Formats: sequence, C-alpha cells, structure tokens
Amino acid sequence: MKRLLLLTTGGTIASIPTVEGLAPGIGGDAMAHRLGPMADHYELTVRDILHLDSSNIQPEEWQVIARAVHEARNRFDGIVVTHGTDTMAYTASVLSFMLLHIGIPVVLTGAQLSIDHPLTDALENLRAALAMAASGVPGVFVAFDRKIILGTRAVKTKTTGFDAFESVNAPLAATVSGSGLNLHIQPVHDGEPCVLRNRLCRDVFLIKLTPGLNPEIFDMLLRMRYRGIVIEAFGAGGLHFIRRDLISKLHKMTAAGIAVVVCSQCLYERSDFSLYQTGQKALDQGVIQTGDMTTEAAVTKLMWILGQTSSLEEVRRCFSTNLAGEISYFS
Amino acid sequence: MKRLLLLTTGGTIASIPTVEGLAPGIGGDAMAHRLGPMADHYELTVRDILHLDSSNIQPEEWQVIARAVHEARNRFDGIVVTHGTDTMAYTASVLSFMLLHIGIPVVLTGAQLSIDHPLTDALENLRAALAMAASGVPGVFVAFDRKIILGTRAVKTKTTGFDAFESVNAPLAATVSGSGLNLHIQPVHDGEPCVLRNRLCRDVFLIKLTPGLNPEIFDMLLRMRYRGIVIEAFGAGGLHFIRRDLISKLHKMTAAGIAVVVCSQCLYERSDFSLYQTGQKALDQGVIQTGDMTTEAAVTKLMWILGQTSSLEEVRRCFSTNLAGEISYFS
Repeated sequence: MKRLLLLTTGGTIASIPTVEGLAPGIGGDAMAHRLGPMADHYELTVRDILHLDSSNIQPEEWQVIARAVHEARNRFDGIVVTHGTDTMAYTASVLSFMLLHIGIPVVLTGAQLSIDHPLTDALENLRAALAMAASGVPGVFVAFDRKIILGTRAVKTKTTGFDAFESVNAPLAATVSGSGLNLHIQPVHDGEPCVLRNRLCRDVFLIKLTPGLNPEIFDMLLRMRYRGIVIEAFGAGGLHFIRRDLISKLHKMTAAGIAVVVCSQCLYERSDFSLYQTGQKALDQGVIQTGDMTTEAAVTKLMWILGQTSSLEEVRRCFSTNLAGEISYFS
Repeated sequence: MKRLLLLTTGGTIASIPTVEGLAPGIGGDAMAHRLGPMADHYELTVRDILHLDSSNIQPEEWQVIARAVHEARNRFDGIVVTHGTDTMAYTASVLSFMLLHIGIPVVLTGAQLSIDHPLTDALENLRAALAMAASGVPGVFVAFDRKIILGTRAVKTKTTGFDAFESVNAPLAATVSGSGLNLHIQPVHDGEPCVLRNRLCRDVFLIKLTPGLNPEIFDMLLRMRYRGIVIEAFGAGGLHFIRRDLISKLHKMTAAGIAVVVCSQCLYERSDFSLYQTGQKALDQGVIQTGDMTTEAAVTKLMWILGQTSSLEEVRRCFSTNLAGEISYFS
C-alpha cells in the first residue's frame, strides 16, 4: 500500500462560513474523514501546516510548504498539498523550481466549493490528487477536475467553474476517466539529489501594459529598488514607444542591473519579441524573453533565480533554460 | 448596394518586412485591390487615418479613430476599421463607449499575417468584417476568424493563432459559415443620437497582483496622481492582507478620491468580492466591482468615465451600469 502524505494549507476546500464570508476552518483529519473508505486505498498521513485563504499565501508560505515537502520526501511515495485555488498556480510553479529533482509526485489540489458543501468538487479532486501522488511520476503537479497539469503550466482561468485550471501551452500530464488514471508522461526520475533551494527574491514586480501607460512608472520602480521586472506586453511582443517611450525606460532599467523579463498578456501561445519592430527595439535593450512560459511561471522563476544569484548573466542563462517543463522551446 | 467605409490604421494586416522587423506599410487602396472582385459587392470608400503598429495606438489615437467614425456615420451604412491585433481589444472597448448609440455597424478587423503573405488570414477577416458592416446591426464589433465579437467582449488570447480573439463571458454576435453571416443578435438601434464623447482620463493604472506584492506600490501610485486604479486580484476576488496589507492601502486610495476598480486575473467568468473574507475586506474600503467585464473593458471604461466626470459617486454609478454589453449581470 502506497504511503501518502496529505499536507493542508487552507483554501476554499477547507472553508467554513463566517460572518465575514468563507474562511479556512477544516483540518486534514476532517478532510480524510470526508473521503470515507476511499482513504483506505492508501496509508495516509495527515499534517496541517497552514490555515490560509490562498490570497494570503506569499513567498514566506511557499518556503514553509517547500520545506515540509522536502523534509517528508524520503518517507512517502507521494505528497498531496491542499491549497486555495486563487494562487495555486503561482505556488505550483514556484515549488517546481524550489524542489527541482524531487523524486516523488507532489500534487497540489483544492476545490471551488468547500468539502462540506453538498455539491463539492473537493472529493473528486482529492481522489485524483491521491491517485497521481501514488503514480510514482516525480514532479510537481496540479490535480483539478479530472485533469493532472504540470505545476509550471497550470493557470487558473475561471473564477468559479469546476474546470478552473488549464494546462497552458503544454499537454496534460494525466487524465482521469473510466480507465482510471491515464498517464501521458513517463515516470522518469533523473536521479539527481533534491536539494531544497527555497531562497527567493521578493523584489520582483509584474506590470501588465495598457495603451498609453505612463513610462514614469519605471522610474518609480527603479526608486523602489526592484531587482526584477516582468512585463506583460501586447500580443506576440509589443510596447509603445511613440509619445510615451517605454523602450528608453527598458534601457534605463537593464543599465541599472535590473533583470527585465518580457512576456505576453495573451494567455495562450508563445511570445516572440523579434517578430515586430516594437519588440525588436525592446530586445535591443537587453530584456529577457519567456518563450511560451505562463506569467505565473515567469514571475516565480525570476523570484527564484534572483534568490540564487545576483549575476545578471547567470539570471539570463538560467531563465532561458528549461528547468521544470516551463518552456517548450525558445524563439 | 451598401455604402461602406474602410478606415485603415496600420497593424500586421498592412505590414511589410523592414530591417527592424515587420512594420506598417500597405494603405487602404492596396488593401481593397487585394480583395479583388469581392470588393464590388459594396460601394467601398477607403481612408487611411493612421499607419501604426497597434502597440503604438494609445488614447490619442483612440480619439482620432472615434472622430473619424463619428464624422462619417451618416454617409455610410457601415464602417470597417483595420487595426493591429495587439491592442485591438482595448480599441474596440473604448470605441464602444466613445461612440455609444452609434446607429451603424463599426467593425474592427486585422490579421495575424500581412495581407501580402501567401497564407494570410487578412482576406477572410476583411470579408467577414465587410459583411458585418453591411448587416445593419448597430454597435462596435471585432471580426476575426469567422467570428463577430461584441467590441466590449473581445480579448486577444493567442499571440499568433488565426483564432486569436475570444468573446469572453458573452455569446458571439455572429458567425460566418456556409449559410453566410449568421446573426445571433437583433439589429435594434435605440434611436438615441450618437454624441461623440471621446474625452478620456489617461491617469488610470492597471495592477495585476502577484503573491507577496509590496503594498508600497500604492503609495507610489498615489504620489503619481493617478485618478483611477484597476486591480486584477486573485480568483473570484482575493488580495493579501497578512504581513503585507493591501487592504489598508485600498482604504488610503479611496479616501484620497481615487476610483479603485477590482476585477479578476482569471480570464473567464465573473469576479465577486463578496464571496470570501479577503474580498469582503476590499469591498469595505469602497472599491468598485466589475462583474464579468473583461480587463480591457474595465480599464477603458474607467478611463472614459473619468474623462466625463470627476464625481466619484457618478463614476461608481456609471461604472456599474451596462452601457455597451460589457456587463451581463452584477453580483
């Protein structure tokens, strides 16, 4: 029987009504109890590590979760982490980097309705997560609505629908159907030891462009001593430079030693700043491309890399290397 | 024969290769020529008003386009505006507000490949746009990949795919198939005169939250004298307040007379800040909800409303009213 660890962190799945709206309140033992006889398929250990709405899960909590997973990795065949859905994609991405070469499945899941709601999706999601955790496929994943998504590819695209997560720019890792858990990837572990690397740089800012954005914001960000900036540009890679010149600000930022990463505000497909004149002008300023990474992966990868090194050349090299499935190819 | 006006503004559809990458270079007459005998179905007038990559289309250009459409509205049965795809959704949204009660169809279109590329989607998109412009259905629309999308509902979700635009949280206005242009909405004009209201407030900032975002950014925005802020929060409506308190900053902003609008960074479905404790805390600070509006509609609507009034009560009332199909319902 597979030994699985259930780590709980709060979220809607564990929520109860309060006078201020839903807030976390159900622990892991109660959750396991709700699973009923189904839990008997596994040797299940439960540990509550946080009790937070995922909007309050921040870099410090990422470090707590990563440490808990890392400490337990040799005593279990797989680990399930329950988590609010709102920031689950960020957590899944950052854990993928912090826990590189993890030898076991680490599966995040949650729910759009509390496990105590009569229509809850929690039980189905937990069942899928436990099955994936028992699969032997190493890596960080999100289990949601019968889909298993690679951690660096998960994006929450729906606010309330049960099919809240998509695997963006990558095929599903597995699906659940009448034939059980259908793995679409091979259970290969690269054999490298998993060294916990959970240092992060918090001084990373995400900016989603809007037409006519005042370039002065970049002077402000410079003054606020951000070390990394992720820019969600227009389409495949556009920024305005007429009348309000964002391009010269990019130059100012990179010249000041700030890592400037550019991606697209389009949800799907890769960005490529070499295609258009407006994008090429940005590349000339030394910005770093993201290829087909999600914004969640780009932001957390930059925070993580800047936590490991202060060499901009190293940042650039590492950012452009596929570490955990976050890039399919580069332009 | 329907009298149609083709206004061109540049974009990929009109692009030619340059040493710096693709840049606009093909005018409306050349575009009409590429349509061949197909153009003979309409009495077509062509006018080139801008020659820009749409990343450089900003509020000033929105005003130019709105004025050109408004001036021509009584002399034509419909107007097609060719435009780069990258910011087309923003332009379509803002024109919907600037040209409220427009009595004719105004249809934006563009392409993912230049009209001179052997695989171009430009001809198909132009044909659909012209057919919609001849349909008699008043309003602002985007025509792309056999779909006609209400202007306030269009979002560019793919960087290069021909099916680049989606109708977010709303059904398609029309589709193109073997049965021609299939209208899914009725051609009803409300009879109100179309008064050009193209004043805009440019001091609106969009902020997409990331976990652990430093709340000091809001002090910076306050110092930069922004009049409106749109916050893309987590999930159905979450912001962090533990350790880094965004909620108290919201209070500071609204107390200073800034219009603070909250939406979701999830692409689909509506946000509702009353559901969770973290969202309710935000509502208590006087923020304005967006319901199921797109971010593009929320940003441009706020810029437009702040251009019409400086009364926060008026902003709140107007923002919560469905003006051009941008809100289906409110929580």
